[in-house]
Amino acid sequence: MATRGRPRRAEADAEILQAALAMLRAGGYRELSLDEVARRAGTAKSSIYRRWSSKAALAAEIVRREVPAPEGDDLVQAFDALLNGSMGGVVASLIGEAQESAETRAIVLDLLAPYRHAGDDLLGGILFRRLLSQ
Amino acid sequence: MATRGRPRRAEADAEILQAALAMLRAGGYRELSLDEVARRAGTAKSSIYRRWSSKAALAAEIVRREVPAPEGDDLVQAFDALLNGSMGGVVASLIGEAQESAETRAIVLDLLAPYRHAGDDLLGGILFRRLLSQ
Repeated sequence: MATRGRPRRAEADAEILQAALAMLRAGGYRELSLDEVARRAGTAKSSIYRRWSSKAALAAEIVRREVPAPEGDDLVQAFDALLNGSMGGVVASLIGEAQESAETRAIVLDLLAPYRHAGDDLLGGILFRRLLSQ
Repeated sequence: MATRGRPRRAEADAEILQAALAMLRAGGYRELSLDEVARRAGTAKSSIYRRWSSKAALAAEIVRREVPAPEGDDLVQAFDALLNGSMGGVVASLIGEAQESAETRAIVLDLLAPYRHAGDDLLGGILFRRLLSQ
Protein backbone atom coordinates (compact mmCIF):
# COMPACT_ATOMS: atom_id res chain seq x y z
CA MET A 1 0.00 0.00 0.00
CA ALA A 2 1.38 3.36 -0.97
CA THR A 3 2.03 5.83 1.80
CA ARG A 4 1.90 9.53 1.35
CA GLY A 5 4.49 11.95 2.63
CA ARG A 6 2.16 13.22 5.30
CA PRO A 7 0.00 11.04 7.51
CA ARG A 8 -3.74 11.05 7.05
CA ARG A 9 -5.84 13.31 9.23
CA ALA A 10 -6.48 10.96 12.15
CA GLU A 11 -2.85 9.94 12.23
CA ALA A 12 -1.74 13.54 12.02
CA ASP A 13 -4.02 14.46 14.93
CA ALA A 14 -2.58 11.66 17.02
CA GLU A 15 0.94 12.79 16.21
CA ILE A 16 0.07 16.38 17.10
CA LEU A 17 -1.39 15.35 20.45
CA GLN A 18 1.57 13.16 21.23
CA ALA A 19 4.08 15.88 20.39
CA ALA A 20 2.19 18.50 22.36
CA LEU A 21 1.87 16.23 25.39
CA ALA A 22 5.61 15.59 25.37
CA MET A 23 6.28 19.33 25.21
CA LEU A 24 3.84 20.08 28.03
CA ARG A 25 5.42 17.43 30.22
CA ALA A 26 8.91 18.70 29.51
CA GLY A 27 8.48 22.45 29.75
CA GLY A 28 4.93 23.30 30.74
CA TYR A 29 2.48 25.52 28.90
CA ARG A 30 4.90 28.36 28.37
CA GLU A 31 7.26 26.16 26.40
CA LEU A 32 4.53 24.68 24.22
CA SER A 33 5.07 25.98 20.71
CA LEU A 34 2.75 25.13 17.83
CA ASP A 35 5.62 25.59 15.38
CA GLU A 36 7.60 22.97 17.26
CA VAL A 37 4.57 20.68 17.61
CA ALA A 38 4.08 20.80 13.84
CA ARG A 39 7.75 20.07 13.26
CA ARG A 40 7.78 17.08 15.60
CA ALA A 41 4.49 15.74 14.27
CA GLY A 42 5.69 16.09 10.70
CA THR A 43 2.67 18.13 9.71
CA ALA A 44 1.99 21.67 8.63
CA LYS A 45 0.94 24.16 11.29
CA SER A 46 -2.29 24.56 9.35
CA SER A 47 -3.05 20.93 10.22
CA ILE A 48 -3.08 21.94 13.89
CA TYR A 49 -5.36 24.91 13.27
CA ARG A 50 -7.71 22.75 11.23
CA ARG A 51 -8.72 21.07 14.47
CA TRP A 52 -7.63 23.38 17.32
CA SER A 53 -8.24 27.09 17.28
CA SER A 54 -5.27 27.95 19.46
CA LYS A 55 -2.46 26.69 21.63
CA ALA A 56 -4.88 26.95 24.57
CA ALA A 57 -7.46 24.77 22.81
CA LEU A 58 -4.85 22.10 22.08
CA ALA A 59 -3.56 22.18 25.66
CA ALA A 60 -7.10 21.90 27.04
CA GLU A 61 -7.76 18.79 24.96
CA ILE A 62 -4.61 17.22 26.31
CA VAL A 63 -5.66 18.03 29.88
CA ARG A 64 -9.00 16.33 29.19
CA ARG A 65 -7.30 13.24 27.83
CA GLU A 66 -4.84 13.03 30.70
CA VAL A 67 -7.39 13.79 33.41
CA PRO A 68 -10.79 12.38 32.49
CA ALA A 69 -13.85 14.31 33.69
CA PRO A 70 -14.94 13.36 37.21
CA GLU A 71 -17.59 10.68 37.42
CA GLY A 72 -18.13 10.31 41.14
CA ASP A 73 -19.62 12.68 43.64
CA ASP A 74 -16.44 14.08 45.06
CA LEU A 75 -15.86 16.95 42.70
CA VAL A 76 -13.74 18.79 45.24
CA GLN A 77 -11.33 15.87 45.41
CA ALA A 78 -11.35 15.60 41.62
CA PHE A 79 -10.62 19.32 41.26
CA ASP A 80 -7.79 19.02 43.75
CA ALA A 81 -6.38 16.11 41.74
CA LEU A 82 -6.70 18.12 38.53
CA LEU A 83 -4.96 21.20 39.87
CA ASN A 84 -2.26 19.39 41.77
CA GLY A 85 -1.64 16.52 39.38
CA SER A 86 0.61 16.28 36.34
CA MET A 87 -1.53 18.73 34.37
CA GLY A 88 -2.01 21.18 37.25
CA GLY A 89 0.57 23.61 35.96
CA VAL A 90 -1.04 23.62 32.52
CA VAL A 91 -4.46 24.35 34.03
CA ALA A 92 -2.98 27.15 36.16
CA SER A 93 -1.33 28.65 33.06
CA LEU A 94 -4.59 28.45 31.12
CA ILE A 95 -6.42 30.23 33.94
CA GLY A 96 -3.66 32.81 33.87
CA GLU A 97 -3.97 33.34 30.11
CA ALA A 98 -7.73 33.58 30.51
CA GLN A 99 -7.25 36.89 32.34
CA GLU A 100 -6.05 38.43 29.08
CA SER A 101 -7.92 36.42 26.46
CA ALA A 102 -11.67 35.98 26.17
CA GLU A 103 -11.14 32.99 23.89
CA THR A 104 -8.95 31.25 26.45
CA ARG A 105 -11.45 32.14 29.15
CA ALA A 106 -14.18 30.31 27.25
CA ILE A 107 -11.88 27.30 26.84
CA VAL A 108 -11.09 27.24 30.55
CA LEU A 109 -14.74 27.61 31.54
CA ASP A 110 -15.54 24.62 29.35
CA LEU A 111 -12.65 22.62 30.78
CA LEU A 112 -13.68 23.29 34.38
CA ALA A 113 -17.44 23.01 33.84
CA PRO A 114 -17.66 19.39 35.09
CA TYR A 115 -16.24 20.45 38.44
CA ARG A 116 -18.30 23.56 39.08
CA HIS A 117 -21.31 21.73 40.45
CA ALA A 118 -19.21 21.39 43.59
CA GLY A 119 -19.67 25.12 44.09
CA ASP A 120 -17.16 27.90 43.60
CA ASP A 121 -16.54 28.37 47.31
CA LEU A 122 -15.52 24.76 47.79
CA LEU A 123 -13.24 24.79 44.76
CA GLY A 124 -11.86 28.24 45.48
CA GLY A 125 -9.50 27.34 48.29
CA ILE A 126 -7.85 24.75 46.08
CA LEU A 127 -7.53 27.26 43.27
CA PHE A 128 -6.24 29.95 45.60
CA ARG A 129 -3.48 27.75 46.93
CA ARG A 130 -2.55 26.38 43.52
CA LEU A 131 -2.27 29.76 41.89
CA LEU A 132 -0.53 31.46 44.77
CA SER A 133 1.66 28.81 46.31
CA GLN A 134 5.27 29.82 46.70
CA MET B 1 14.87 78.94 40.52
CA ALA B 2 16.31 77.16 37.58
CA THR B 3 14.50 74.08 36.41
CA ARG B 4 16.11 71.19 34.67
CA GLY B 5 14.85 69.49 31.57
CA ARG B 6 13.80 66.44 33.51
CA PRO B 7 11.99 66.53 36.86
CA ARG B 8 13.83 65.46 39.98
CA ARG B 9 13.47 61.93 41.24
CA ALA B 10 10.41 62.35 43.47
CA GLU B 11 8.64 64.36 40.81
CA ALA B 12 9.55 61.81 38.18
CA ASP B 13 8.19 58.98 40.33
CA ALA B 14 4.91 60.85 40.80
CA GLU B 15 4.65 61.43 37.05
CA ILE B 16 5.36 57.76 36.38
CA LEU B 17 2.69 56.62 38.82
CA GLN B 18 0.18 59.07 37.40
CA ALA B 19 0.83 58.00 33.82
CA ALA B 20 0.69 54.31 34.68
CA LEU B 21 -2.55 54.72 36.63
CA ALA B 22 -4.15 56.49 33.68
CA MET B 23 -3.07 53.67 31.37
CA LEU B 24 -4.35 50.97 33.72
CA ARG B 25 -7.70 52.73 34.01
CA ALA B 26 -8.00 53.12 30.27
CA GLY B 27 -6.82 49.76 29.01
CA GLY B 28 -6.06 47.44 31.91
CA TYR B 29 -2.82 45.63 32.62
CA ARG B 30 -2.37 44.29 29.14
CA GLU B 31 -2.27 47.78 27.67
CA LEU B 32 0.17 49.10 30.25
CA SER B 33 3.45 49.79 28.45
CA LEU B 34 6.54 51.04 30.23
CA ASP B 35 7.72 52.70 27.03
CA GLU B 36 4.49 54.67 26.89
CA VAL B 37 4.60 55.43 30.64
CA ALA B 38 8.10 56.86 30.20
CA ARG B 39 6.96 58.92 27.23
CA ARG B 40 3.96 60.36 29.06
CA ALA B 41 5.93 61.00 32.24
CA GLY B 42 8.67 62.74 30.29
CA THR B 43 11.35 60.50 31.75
CA ALA B 44 13.70 57.82 30.52
CA LYS B 45 12.59 54.22 30.86
CA SER B 46 15.64 53.70 33.07
CA SER B 47 14.00 56.07 35.57
CA ILE B 48 11.15 53.56 35.90
CA TYR B 49 13.50 50.63 36.38
CA ARG B 50 15.48 52.58 38.98
CA ARG B 51 12.51 52.18 41.28
CA TRP B 52 10.36 49.34 39.92
CA SER B 53 11.82 46.08 38.73
CA SER B 54 9.08 45.35 36.22
CA LYS B 55 5.71 46.32 34.84
CA ALA B 56 4.19 44.00 37.45
CA ALA B 57 5.98 45.77 40.29
CA LEU B 58 4.77 49.15 39.09
CA ALA B 59 1.20 47.90 38.69
CA ALA B 60 1.25 46.35 42.17
CA GLU B 61 2.31 49.64 43.71
CA ILE B 62 -0.56 51.39 41.98
CA VAL B 63 -3.00 48.75 43.27
CA ARG B 64 -1.69 49.39 46.81
CA ARG B 65 -2.16 53.12 46.44
CA GLU B 66 -5.65 52.80 45.00
CA VAL B 67 -6.79 50.10 47.43
CA PRO B 68 -5.16 50.58 50.84
CA ALA B 69 -4.42 47.45 52.84
CA PRO B 70 -7.37 46.29 54.96
CA GLU B 71 -7.38 47.54 58.53
CA GLY B 72 -10.53 46.00 59.97
CA ASP B 73 -11.37 42.44 60.70
CA ASP B 74 -13.35 41.65 57.60
CA LEU B 75 -10.60 40.52 55.30
CA VAL B 76 -13.01 38.54 53.15
CA GLN B 77 -15.02 41.67 52.44
CA ALA B 78 -11.82 43.60 51.78
CA PHE B 79 -10.58 40.92 49.37
CA ASP B 80 -13.90 40.97 47.58
CA ALA B 81 -13.63 44.75 47.27
CA LEU B 82 -10.08 44.43 45.96
CA LEU B 83 -10.90 41.83 43.33
CA ASN B 84 -14.15 43.35 42.22
CA GLY B 85 -13.26 47.02 42.47
CA SER B 86 -11.55 49.34 39.99
CA MET B 87 -8.24 47.49 40.31
CA GLY B 88 -9.76 44.00 40.24
CA GLY B 89 -8.84 43.39 36.63
CA VAL B 90 -5.25 44.42 37.30
CA VAL B 91 -5.02 42.02 40.24
CA ALA B 92 -6.51 39.22 38.14
CA SER B 93 -3.98 39.90 35.39
CA LEU B 94 -1.11 39.89 37.89
CA ILE B 95 -2.29 36.54 39.26
CA GLY B 96 -2.43 35.32 35.68
CA GLU B 97 1.10 36.49 34.91
CA ALA B 98 2.27 34.88 38.16
CA GLN B 99 1.57 31.48 36.62
CA GLU B 100 4.43 32.05 34.19
CA SER B 101 6.77 34.29 36.17
CA ALA B 102 8.31 33.56 39.56
CA GLU B 103 9.11 37.24 39.98
CA THR B 104 5.50 38.25 39.41
CA ARG B 105 4.39 35.47 41.74
CA ALA B 106 6.48 36.98 44.54
CA ILE B 107 5.00 40.41 43.82
CA VAL B 108 1.45 39.03 43.94
CA LEU B 109 2.09 37.09 47.14
CA ASP B 110 3.33 40.30 48.73
CA LEU B 111 0.35 42.25 47.44
CA LEU B 112 -2.16 39.74 48.79
CA ALA B 113 -0.36 38.99 52.05
CA PRO B 114 -2.54 41.35 54.16
CA TYR B 115 -5.64 39.42 53.13
CA ARG B 116 -4.39 35.88 53.65
CA HIS B 117 -5.03 35.81 57.36
CA ALA B 118 -8.65 35.35 56.37
CA GLY B 119 -7.73 31.87 55.16
CA ASP B 120 -7.34 30.61 51.63
CA ASP B 121 -10.65 28.75 51.65
CA LEU B 122 -12.62 31.87 52.52
CA LEU B 123 -10.85 33.95 49.90
CA GLY B 124 -10.86 31.22 47.29
CA GLY B 125 -14.48 31.44 46.25
CA ILE B 126 -14.04 35.12 45.52
CA LEU B 127 -10.91 34.42 43.52
CA PHE B 128 -12.54 31.54 41.65
CA ARG B 129 -15.47 33.67 40.55
CA ARG B 130 -13.32 36.67 39.65
CA LEU B 131 -10.91 34.67 37.53
CA LEU B 132 -13.51 32.51 35.87
CA SER B 133 -16.55 34.70 35.49
CA GLN B 134 -17.91 34.88 31.98
